[in-house]
Amino acid sequence: MAWDQKIFRIVRVRNSQKKGVLAKLLTAIAEAGGNIGSMVLVTETSLHVVRDLTITVESESMLETVLEAMRANEGTKIIEVRDEVLELHQKGKIAIRSRYPIESLTTLRRVYTPGVAEVCLRIAKDPSQARLYTSISHMVAIVTDGTAVLGLGDIGPLAGMPVMEGKAMLMETLVGLSGIPILLNTKDTDEIVNTVAAISPTFAAIQLEDISAPRCFEIEERLQAMLDIPVLHDDQHGTAVVCTAALMTATRETGMDLKKAVIGQIGLGAAGQAIGQMMMRLTGNPVHGADLSPEALSRFEKLGGIKSNLKDIMANCDIVVATTGAPNLIKPEMVRKGQIILALSNPNAEIDPEVAMEHGAAFAADGKSVNNVLGFPGIFRGAVDANAPRITQEMLVAAAETIASMTPPGELVPSPLNKKVHRAVARAVAEMAIKQGIARADYVPYVEE
Amino acid sequence: MAWDQKIFRIVRVRNSQKKGVLAKLLTAIAEAGGNIGSMVLVTETSLHVVRDLTITVESESMLETVLEAMRANEGTKIIEVRDEVLELHQKGKIAIRSRYPIESLTTLRRVYTPGVAEVCLRIAKDPSQARLYTSISHMVAIVTDGTAVLGLGDIGPLAGMPVMEGKAMLMETLVGLSGIPILLNTKDTDEIVNTVAAISPTFAAIQLEDISAPRCFEIEERLQAMLDIPVLHDDQHGTAVVCTAALMTATRETGMDLKKAVIGQIGLGAAGQAIGQMMMRLTGNPVHGADLSPEALSRFEKLGGIKSNLKDIMANCDIVVATTGAPNLIKPEMVRKGQIILALSNPNAEIDPEVAMEHGAAFAADGKSVNNVLGFPGIFRGAVDANAPRITQEMLVAAAETIASMTPPGELVPSPLNKKVHRAVARAVAEMAIKQGIARADYVPYVEE
Repeated sequence: MAWDQKIFRIVRVRNSQKKGVLAKLLTAIAEAGGNIGSMVLVTETSLHVVRDLTITVESESMLETVLEAMRANEGTKIIEVRDEVLELHQKGKIAIRSRYPIESLTTLRRVYTPGVAEVCLRIAKDPSQARLYTSISHMVAIVTDGTAVLGLGDIGPLAGMPVMEGKAMLMETLVGLSGIPILLNTKDTDEIVNTVAAISPTFAAIQLEDISAPRCFEIEERLQAMLDIPVLHDDQHGTAVVCTAALMTATRETGMDLKKAVIGQIGLGAAGQAIGQMMMRLTGNPVHGADLSPEALSRFEKLGGIKSNLKDIMANCDIVVATTGAPNLIKPEMVRKGQIILALSNPNAEIDPEVAMEHGAAFAADGKSVNNVLGFPGIFRGAVDANAPRITQEMLVAAAETIASMTPPGELVPSPLNKKVHRAVARAVAEMAIKQGIARADYVPYVEE
Repeated sequence: MAWDQKIFRIVRVRNSQKKGVLAKLLTAIAEAGGNIGSMVLVTETSLHVVRDLTITVESESMLETVLEAMRANEGTKIIEVRDEVLELHQKGKIAIRSRYPIESLTTLRRVYTPGVAEVCLRIAKDPSQARLYTSISHMVAIVTDGTAVLGLGDIGPLAGMPVMEGKAMLMETLVGLSGIPILLNTKDTDEIVNTVAAISPTFAAIQLEDISAPRCFEIEERLQAMLDIPVLHDDQHGTAVVCTAALMTATRETGMDLKKAVIGQIGLGAAGQAIGQMMMRLTGNPVHGADLSPEALSRFEKLGGIKSNLKDIMANCDIVVATTGAPNLIKPEMVRKGQIILALSNPNAEIDPEVAMEHGAAFAADGKSVNNVLGFPGIFRGAVDANAPRITQEMLVAAAETIASMTPPGELVPSPLNKKVHRAVARAVAEMAIKQGIARADYVPYVEE
């Protein structure tokens, strides 16, 4: 898997019809650090074979090295290097579609004036009807100020848009929700809260995305207190749900008792704090937390956590989760025998899982195997279908348990593109809302259009 | 045409197989005030014929009268009455679609992490690239506070949503733009301006919709001054463009010289003021304005108009446009011989066109024939394609001239669903932006996906 390799290129090469030319080429690519995905035959003559090779690499410089090595291969000519990712992004990845064609004036008069007036008046009389007769019922705002995008940090809202569009694609593809990116040109907490509150009637739920800590905590809290629709910061709770599911699987596989295990959380940012919180709720035991920021530590202590540090956590904890963004922070000799370690920072983990295993860990994984795509679509679908006013920790735990229960033997989590999993998560979340008595709709499980 | 009839029903009737039953039924419906659209044969036996009749009426009470009359018809049985408009609105009329399917992990890694990171960084380096590689390039906010929806007035943002969705459907169907409804839960001018400005990076243009006067004037003006993307209040300028096109056609048909004609505008609300302004710009002559509100009158005077009143305008103007919302405001005896009269209030005009013609008008039409659907899609498409920072009066006049030039002989304006017209409007608007030197993109005319 080339999960962590950021750069994709499609290289069209023409090889001469000689034995071994392709094999030598592939070897050259691999030795230069390139990773080969698919290989497609384009044309073949008695003299030449033209193929498209999908190559992934870690950096621009490595790309150059790889292309150099390819040019150097005897019998190989590079015809063209295409950037397919960029091509896919041209004009963006999402669009609004009409749910019906307007093919005649008759239809126009039904969906627009004058026919629409009757629907407007019905909603004016009873605003709850808006859920039945408008798209609000499936519209989820994906709100960002671009301050904590992927591992890239504060790159601004415009540069964050491709990620928001990716989230919207996944919501539509996996659970049929309409994710609407909302890019904010302010980082001010009050302005963000006021702006999102002002446009909130448009949506069935608000997904906060890639907003940096600690502002993300206050923004989520204040908005949820103001609004009667779910407000969820995915980087906190979506990640926590999938990480919790992974730990449920890992403890099951290794025969460890999650409820009895001593758990340590290294890095108490958005994700780390949420993971620690969910673990404490789930096990009833305090979690040991480490962070370089004193504010983060005391925030975690207020939530019931125990102040600690990297060294002690590695020495004393049965389960360690790291979300620090610091590559190779965990030295191999720190690993305790039988430990479960999730080193989640992307693209480079706090410790290479293989190295951790070699040094005695019972189980180890990195961020590539804990993909938050598994969380947010079903969580929002379930909360929206139940018309819940908020998403409770119990609803999040129900999501985690469902993901864990649907994990194939030997895997840490299910495939993120398995729609069955997302529908099951949606159902579990909605049913928990009903059980908690906060559902406000006759729940109808989501079915694809 | 049943343009103004607000209520649609599909009535399934079973008639006995006897000569004349259907004819009698249709007569009964017509006499009771019902209007019959399509009639579809459902089943037929030796004894019975089952048909679906689409019936439009003016009011709920009239619907009852019509159904009564149908039940009273000998040999007719009503099987079912369906509300197709409501059915069409269930779950709303728009949704987000992915422009590519995510069918494999490979695609997921290209459109989402880690592949997306390269696109994010490219935009972070050069924000102008967001136009090329995100959906911002075709996203238009359709912003309303629900204070002036259709002829219904201040029914609130939720009740306005079906109209906003209708606009979005038309934008997508006619010119391929992604209209994103934004419902505001505030009517405060400052809050509206700040909110729209805060989310403006998400969009290529802002369409203000159904915001009541006089706030709409200040909101549009302040937002356009703050933002470098087009901000347009459709109820003002979209309506003015289509009305201007209609006057161009009407003067051509009647042989009147628009530039020499004395023009009167009755009603100086959002639409009326904009129509008067455009007429003054176009002809270089002042327009006579009438309104019950002194503020509206002096606002119009500041714009170069002449304070007047209903009586004088009817007595002295060659062309009269009325946008008052007051049915039958213009008495037949007020009509001056040879006058061109556009009585635009919906659903009931200031004077019935037929009556106006009988009393000597050279030409008369009402609001049903001046549909603003002809304006906004092409105007926004053209401005966005040229990446113009604003929409100038010249761009609006270019749109009006294009609509007029494409009007079939004998018609007042083209069909609102004729895509050729919308593409031509987009092109004319973009080319005017280029001519004025405010286009910021290499203009590529819109082609359907």
